Amino acid sequence: MLINRNYTSQPQYENCTHIIKVPLVEYQTLSVDTRNLLLNSRLQATLMWTDPGLTWNTSVYHYDQVVLPVEKVWTPEIHVTNGIRTRMHQYSNDLLLFSNGTLVHTVIIMAEVNCEVNLFNYPFAEDACPVAIQTWAVAGCGTSLRLGNLKMIDSSHGDWETLGVSFEKQSEDQNYIWVLLRIKHFNPFITLMFPTILIVLADVVSFSLPLGGGERNTFKVTLVLSHTMLLTILNEKLPGDSQCSPIIRLHFCICLVLLFLSMLVSLVLTRVAKEGSIIFCCCPKKNATKSTGNKKEDTEAKGDISVIKLNGPEEENQMLQRVVKILQSFENKELENEKYQNRANAIDKAFFWLYFVCSTLYFCSMLTVMRTYECTVNHFNFWD
Amino acid sequence: MLINRNYTSQPQYENCTHIIKVPLVEYQTLSVDTRNLLLNSRLQATLMWTDPGLTWNTSVYHYDQVVLPVEKVWTPEIHVTNGIRTRMHQYSNDLLLFSNGTLVHTVIIMAEVNCEVNLFNYPFAEDACPVAIQTWAVAGCGTSLRLGNLKMIDSSHGDWETLGVSFEKQSEDQNYIWVLLRIKHFNPFITLMFPTILIVLADVVSFSLPLGGGERNTFKVTLVLSHTMLLTILNEKLPGDSQCSPIIRLHFCICLVLLFLSMLVSLVLTRVAKEGSIIFCCCPKKNATKSTGNKKEDTEAKGDISVIKLNGPEEENQMLQRVVKILQSFENKELENEKYQNRANAIDKAFFWLYFVCSTLYFCSMLTVMRTYECTVNHFNFWD
Amino acid sequence: MLINRNYTSQPQYENCTHIIKVPLVEYQTLSVDTRNLLLNSRLQATLMWTDPGLTWNTSVYHYDQVVLPVEKVWTPEIHVTNGIRTRMHQYSNDLLLFSNGTLVHTVIIMAEVNCEVNLFNYPFAEDACPVAIQTWAVAGCGTSLRLGNLKMIDSSHGDWETLGVSFEKQSEDQNYIWVLLRIKHFNPFITLMFPTILIVLADVVSFSLPLGGGERNTFKVTLVLSHTMLLTILNEKLPGDSQCSPIIRLHFCICLVLLFLSMLVSLVLTRVAKEGSIIFCCCPKKNATKSTGNKKEDTEAKGDISVIKLNGPEEENQMLQRVVKILQSFENKELENEKYQNRANAIDKAFFWLYFVCSTLYFCSMLTVMRTYECTVNHFNFWD
Amino acid sequence: MLINRNYTSQPQYENCTHIIKVPLVEYQTLSVDTRNLLLNSRLQATLMWTDPGLTWNTSVYHYDQVVLPVEKVWTPEIHVTNGIRTRMHQYSNDLLLFSNGTLVHTVIIMAEVNCEVNLFNYPFAEDACPVAIQTWAVAGCGTSLRLGNLKMIDSSHGDWETLGVSFEKQSEDQNYIWVLLRIKHFNPFITLMFPTILIVLADVVSFSLPLGGGERNTFKVTLVLSHTMLLTILNEKLPGDSQCSPIIRLHFCICLVLLFLSMLVSLVLTRVAKEGSIIFCCCPKKNATKSTGNKKEDTEAKGDISVIKLNGPEEENQMLQRVVKILQSFENKELENEKYQNRANAIDKAFFWLYFVCSTLYFCSMLTVMRTYECTVNHFNFWD
Amino acid sequence: MLINRNYTSQPQYENCTHIIKVPLVEYQTLSVDTRNLLLNSRLQATLMWTDPGLTWNTSVYHYDQVVLPVEKVWTPEIHVTNGIRTRMHQYSNDLLLFSNGTLVHTVIIMAEVNCEVNLFNYPFAEDACPVAIQTWAVAGCGTSLRLGNLKMIDSSHGDWETLGVSFEKQSEDQNYIWVLLRIKHFNPFITLMFPTILIVLADVVSFSLPLGGGERNTFKVTLVLSHTMLLTILNEKLPGDSQCSPIIRLHFCICLVLLFLSMLVSLVLTRVAKEGSIIFCCCPKKNATKSTGNKKEDTEAKGDISVIKLNGPEEENQMLQRVVKILQSFENKELENEKYQNRANAIDKAFFWLYFVCSTLYFCSMLTVMRTYECTVNHFNFWD
Repeated sequence: MLINRNYTSQPQYENCTHIIKVPLVEYQTLSVDTRNLLLNSRLQATLMWTDPGLTWNTSVYHYDQVVLPVEKVWTPEIHVTNGIRTRMHQYSNDLLLFSNGTLVHTVIIMAEVNCEVNLFNYPFAEDACPVAIQTWAVAGCGTSLRLGNLKMIDSSHGDWETLGVSFEKQSEDQNYIWVLLRIKHFNPFITLMFPTILIVLADVVSFSLPLGGGERNTFKVTLVLSHTMLLTILNEKLPGDSQCSPIIRLHFCICLVLLFLSMLVSLVLTRVAKEGSIIFCCCPKKNATKSTGNKKEDTEAKGDISVIKLNGPEEENQMLQRVVKILQSFENKELENEKYQNRANAIDKAFFWLYFVCSTLYFCSMLTVMRTYECTVNHFNFWD
Repeated sequence: MLINRNYTSQPQYENCTHIIKVPLVEYQTLSVDTRNLLLNSRLQATLMWTDPGLTWNTSVYHYDQVVLPVEKVWTPEIHVTNGIRTRMHQYSNDLLLFSNGTLVHTVIIMAEVNCEVNLFNYPFAEDACPVAIQTWAVAGCGTSLRLGNLKMIDSSHGDWETLGVSFEKQSEDQNYIWVLLRIKHFNPFITLMFPTILIVLADVVSFSLPLGGGERNTFKVTLVLSHTMLLTILNEKLPGDSQCSPIIRLHFCICLVLLFLSMLVSLVLTRVAKEGSIIFCCCPKKNATKSTGNKKEDTEAKGDISVIKLNGPEEENQMLQRVVKILQSFENKELENEKYQNRANAIDKAFFWLYFVCSTLYFCSMLTVMRTYECTVNHFNFWD
Repeated sequence: MLINRNYTSQPQYENCTHIIKVPLVEYQTLSVDTRNLLLNSRLQATLMWTDPGLTWNTSVYHYDQVVLPVEKVWTPEIHVTNGIRTRMHQYSNDLLLFSNGTLVHTVIIMAEVNCEVNLFNYPFAEDACPVAIQTWAVAGCGTSLRLGNLKMIDSSHGDWETLGVSFEKQSEDQNYIWVLLRIKHFNPFITLMFPTILIVLADVVSFSLPLGGGERNTFKVTLVLSHTMLLTILNEKLPGDSQCSPIIRLHFCICLVLLFLSMLVSLVLTRVAKEGSIIFCCCPKKNATKSTGNKKEDTEAKGDISVIKLNGPEEENQMLQRVVKILQSFENKELENEKYQNRANAIDKAFFWLYFVCSTLYFCSMLTVMRTYECTVNHFNFWD
Repeated sequence: MLINRNYTSQPQYENCTHIIKVPLVEYQTLSVDTRNLLLNSRLQATLMWTDPGLTWNTSVYHYDQVVLPVEKVWTPEIHVTNGIRTRMHQYSNDLLLFSNGTLVHTVIIMAEVNCEVNLFNYPFAEDACPVAIQTWAVAGCGTSLRLGNLKMIDSSHGDWETLGVSFEKQSEDQNYIWVLLRIKHFNPFITLMFPTILIVLADVVSFSLPLGGGERNTFKVTLVLSHTMLLTILNEKLPGDSQCSPIIRLHFCICLVLLFLSMLVSLVLTRVAKEGSIIFCCCPKKNATKSTGNKKEDTEAKGDISVIKLNGPEEENQMLQRVVKILQSFENKELENEKYQNRANAIDKAFFWLYFVCSTLYFCSMLTVMRTYECTVNHFNFWD
Repeated sequence: MLINRNYTSQPQYENCTHIIKVPLVEYQTLSVDTRNLLLNSRLQATLMWTDPGLTWNTSVYHYDQVVLPVEKVWTPEIHVTNGIRTRMHQYSNDLLLFSNGTLVHTVIIMAEVNCEVNLFNYPFAEDACPVAIQTWAVAGCGTSLRLGNLKMIDSSHGDWETLGVSFEKQSEDQNYIWVLLRIKHFNPFITLMFPTILIVLADVVSFSLPLGGGERNTFKVTLVLSHTMLLTILNEKLPGDSQCSPIIRLHFCICLVLLFLSMLVSLVLTRVAKEGSIIFCCCPKKNATKSTGNKKEDTEAKGDISVIKLNGPEEENQMLQRVVKILQSFENKELENEKYQNRANAIDKAFFWLYFVCSTLYFCSMLTVMRTYECTVNHFNFWD
């Protein structure tokens, strides 16, 4: 028996291509890195192969099966072709040898696969990734696989859900596991989409705030900055530009521009409500001269008060006229203000309806695109 | 003695299944990754087994026990079946051999176990995880375990507390350590639940702020944005959607919607208090015409002043009438404002009570669900 | 000489327990992980032991000392009993052998020790951690240590300062290094304590802001949210609940509640200053009827103006009465407002003093507890 | 056959320099670390070399090719000269040996290369990095490479896009792979450039907010703080100062200074609009004395009212005069305010145009520099 | 030849101390961890030594040089004495052996050195770190170094710039590489110093905001909170307290206190401007009684109006008196307000100048200290 074992410590080949049977592969998705588009998976494969040099006659040596340490015999390797970092461990340090030379062994493969997942409809993304499985073979020499069953375990761990796995064949030697993945959309939806909808809605409703009160602009700048923050968070979660870049990023940019425009209009209308026009340099000069004119009149008026020392009801009358005049001027100023305000309000209303219609149309079309358009990615460019 | 040792450097089996006694296992929970639902644990197991080929006659060789280097003899392996990444170290490079062929050895297993912890009642979550222990055995050959005592050390380290551990058996060869875990709820409670309660409470009390002052809307938008931030923090701490998804996430969403609704109502009521109606496009036009009408009247009035040059008390009387008229118009405007304000206040009050009752009811029912409902997770799907 | 070396490539034992002398241990604290309560340390130990099988006669072989590669001889191991992850490296690939069989070797141990540091008085925490040192020994066989000197190097690196180290003995075979640690309190103090004090102080002083102006509530909600953020930062730095949980966390919670209460009172008083009562549903209805009553009166008054066409001083008199009435009503409204305001101010002042006294008392008692109370942790539960 | 294999387990050299043919290299950019200027790449190279000592006579041993375990023969090494951390793995544990002594083997090299990428025009950066490939050779002994084809796989993964790769030669033994890289500018553009443009635009438009209303300063300080945050985010993404430091950092600083200046001017103008001058200490004292003067007059006036008990129309007249006087004083104050306001508005307008022109000019010149200026980096300083 | 090689697979020593020549060391600073004061460096050293047992007669074996696999001969080790984690790799698996027994080999050492860099003048910090190089030597046995040239490559990568490197000697066997480091101050300057200066400047200018308007306090609390955030960012970048703790941290604390004080004064002055005094509890009570007194008077006045039904000019006169009285009371209130306001403004101005002078003085002295004071750190405490 000991001699037998020592003998087996050399790899053996009868012919140049060796067939490895893989009766069972257990596939497990460990994690999907949405940022770098990497798929971490764990494969536990049971391998069976026959080494004629390791047979024995059961009449001489009475055991039907023998346990051997792994280092003493040659064991086949399985490669993940599109894996960036792949490590293959032995499941155990021992393997089983039957008297007809069949060896049974289990290996664990931790593969990090570069998978260009289609994230076009991002919070509702669903795609498949191939995990290409190969053995070593050069120039007709090496090993070839005979795949058996595939079992998926623990499909719903992490941010992505594994919907199903199956063995597929591209060509004779190009086996792959086709892994169907779907993002769990609840989390990104409430972290990213939900706040955007709230912010845009709040922006629309914020038109009901009075123009001149100063509240509206503060409100809108808060919304714009929050949305900028959301955009930054989104960009940290999503990968860079690629073939099927997520449409949600464009959507966020357009939303931000909409919010920003609405803020700018609100800022400008505040001015209109105050001064009656948007033109920034000409009007004020007129105002200025007008006010200096007023000033002069006022100083005249003052002079009148100090000079006139009239008696009788006429005097009284003049006094009253003065009172009326002052009150009237207050009222006039207010009326002019109101005129400006009304003009601004009218523009505001017009803009509101424009904004409302535009954003509603935009949202509908975006939803349609997000739901219906399908972007296709070629996952097999590593075999080109 | 030397020869004896050299002889032992080969693994030996008398029959195909070997019994490994495990008199003591020391279990330690290193950490629980709540985000990825992973349980990191450390097992220190003392193994005892007998290798008949390593006996010696104490009369020939007078020592009763001998220390051997680990590499020279075969040592059994222990696997954690549901472990994603498992490493087994030798505790020391030497092991003890008794003259009857019994070997005593200690191994350390660092296991990262995929445990779908039930986080339904999140800040008060409590669940158990199995750490399945196996040895290598294929087709009746291999090793089988005889488990002894289990000792838990350092149970209260990290974010989760280990309440207890025990050996359990699913079937003959399916031993597992049943680890009872409870989250330390103080930290997540004061980081997540506490601020939510404060924010909702502040939102309820913020109804006492005057409607028109501009403060209330700023206050409420601050609360909404803070709560959005809290939701983002929560989502970074909790795992994605799963079988028993934490109810607290839904709770946060509903709270956010409540806060948002209360903000929207406040925004709209600000308008109502200002203009008397919510209808956004029809009313203002009327207002505009009215104001232009006023304008005309005013210009008439102005004309009157400049034209009329009456004498006597009648004139005086007219003057006074004018003063009264102006003051009256001020007062009227104010009264109308107050009318609008009162209308808005009434709606505000009604909404407040609605909001108060709804949120109270909601909080009660949420607490009931969070406390009483128990979600069950099948932890043994890796053995299906 | 070569033969001699080849001979030494086997581990040798004369009797079952071997004595290892450790003349010098250099201890260095690499880092203390306050979040997970882990102590990373590096031990560089010089080991001396005697292997009688490696002696030689200096008359035959004339060298007194010989350098041997480490792999060719047996070297003892040192374990850190309470270490979670321990790695022992050889300092060099060679060791020195004297002609009397004494071997001198240096090993480096990187130990990650689970140390339940007492963080009760957190920013001023000071505690000791044991680093238990053992060699392998089972059932009377193995090695035993004879410890010599202990030298601490680089004591003041990182967030914790190592005050001193010493060898201690729990029982015969339970040696440990007793490491005295003190947190460098300047950093956490100015990052965590300092802002809290500033925020609470600012909150107290913010009572000097006028009630109705709208500023105070914005100010206070800003303070509350900043403190919530501080609490989140604190919780990220400190470990979860444990035996001697840091009192500062409780302190932060109480501060947050205080700030929040002060904000709520401020919100409610704004209402009181506006409407004269806190009762939220009954009063307004009265107001509403009153205001509608006023409305009717006003319409009457309006009617009067349009109808009455009196002549003479009586008419004039009535006119003046009307003017006085209008001004009076303005004044009355203002007076009522002022009454409400004064009432609110009085309550505000009372609450301020209450708040001031409570928070001062609280701060004093908290400081007393933080300074005087000592929480004790059993660091040796791994030896139970 | 077995004997043959055992024989090959020694490295063999016929002459001191050995030629290694590399018929195919597959290059893959794993990631580019923009912060630390590191290029992570993966090279999969097929190596062919001839070992005369491993030939056999096919007439004796009938196979034309034989599979050998890698450990039994010598395999050449490939170094990445400018790599900081380089790891070379064997692609498989077996290699192919032809009967003429030619061996075919595949190796995988994970290289982390220090590449001083030119980030001058940052969001539109485009540069090339050399990955220098060498074999071991000292003093004329060693191995030398004969490079064949180069294939790029998966060029568009991560934040940088690989435009092309090619083999280049600096001198005889200095081969390198010239990797053309281009940043995907969409992501950094919308995260960094887009918000800056929005903020500066919002700042320009915010001049339309009224000066005295208090809104403008809050608005501007919000913009300044947001831009500070953006600057911090930028600095976390970009590397420290270097030869071709990204111009965008300077741009951000200048933008921040512009925003800050605009804020300061706005603050000062608020004062001007309130008090009519920027001089901070002299003016107010005059005001103070003036107001105390007014106070005395007022008390006199009060005294008058209480004392004078006149009858007849004169008395009435005086009364009216008093009313007029009071209203006049109100109006005068308002006029003075308006005067100040107008002055402030004029300065504001002037500054606005200055600011507008400056920032437009600045933006144009910055864009020109960013687009046209090309900074060149010497990538080969490791060969100096 | 083969035999020769097999013979060399044992380490050989002729005398107990062996001389290792190091003709060239290439030094590269990989990174400097400012937070933990660690220096990561990479040393590539060419080693030359002579092993007399490996000579051969070139007349017998005709090659002058031979390539050997590294594992077959003994290679010397180089230690970095003050390194925490040091790894030594073989540059290649082969080394060169000359016929006179000289071996040439290259090793790569990745050393993580604990270097207490002097960060006193932080954003302008410049210091040197020793990287101590040693070989293994115990009790006169071992190896000793003969250092040759030192070459620095890639000096300007990362946050720190390497100004120069040189071999120095502390004593006979204590060689070290003296690495001159300078922080690239542009990045920390614009991230940390620049915002502080802006914030303090904005705080000084914010005194120009009107006291009562409510803007100033909001502005100042925003500045204080932003500065707290900056302080937190600073503390995350800098190491804990140490011998030469960076002065910038103290500077930040003082700035924060200054900002905070200025905010408090602003808060208190808002009250002064409103109520005329800082004394918080006594005054208001008087006010309250006064106002109730006023109230009574007013009710009397009301009574008068309703009761008196006088005829003739006297009546009219009284009416006018009443109007004057009411307007007068308005004016009085305003005058009192103005008085308070002026008092507050005066204090505000005084405080402004005090604050301005203090902060200017402080900034000057801080700059002087930061620029001139030099703190010295003993870098060689590991050799004590």
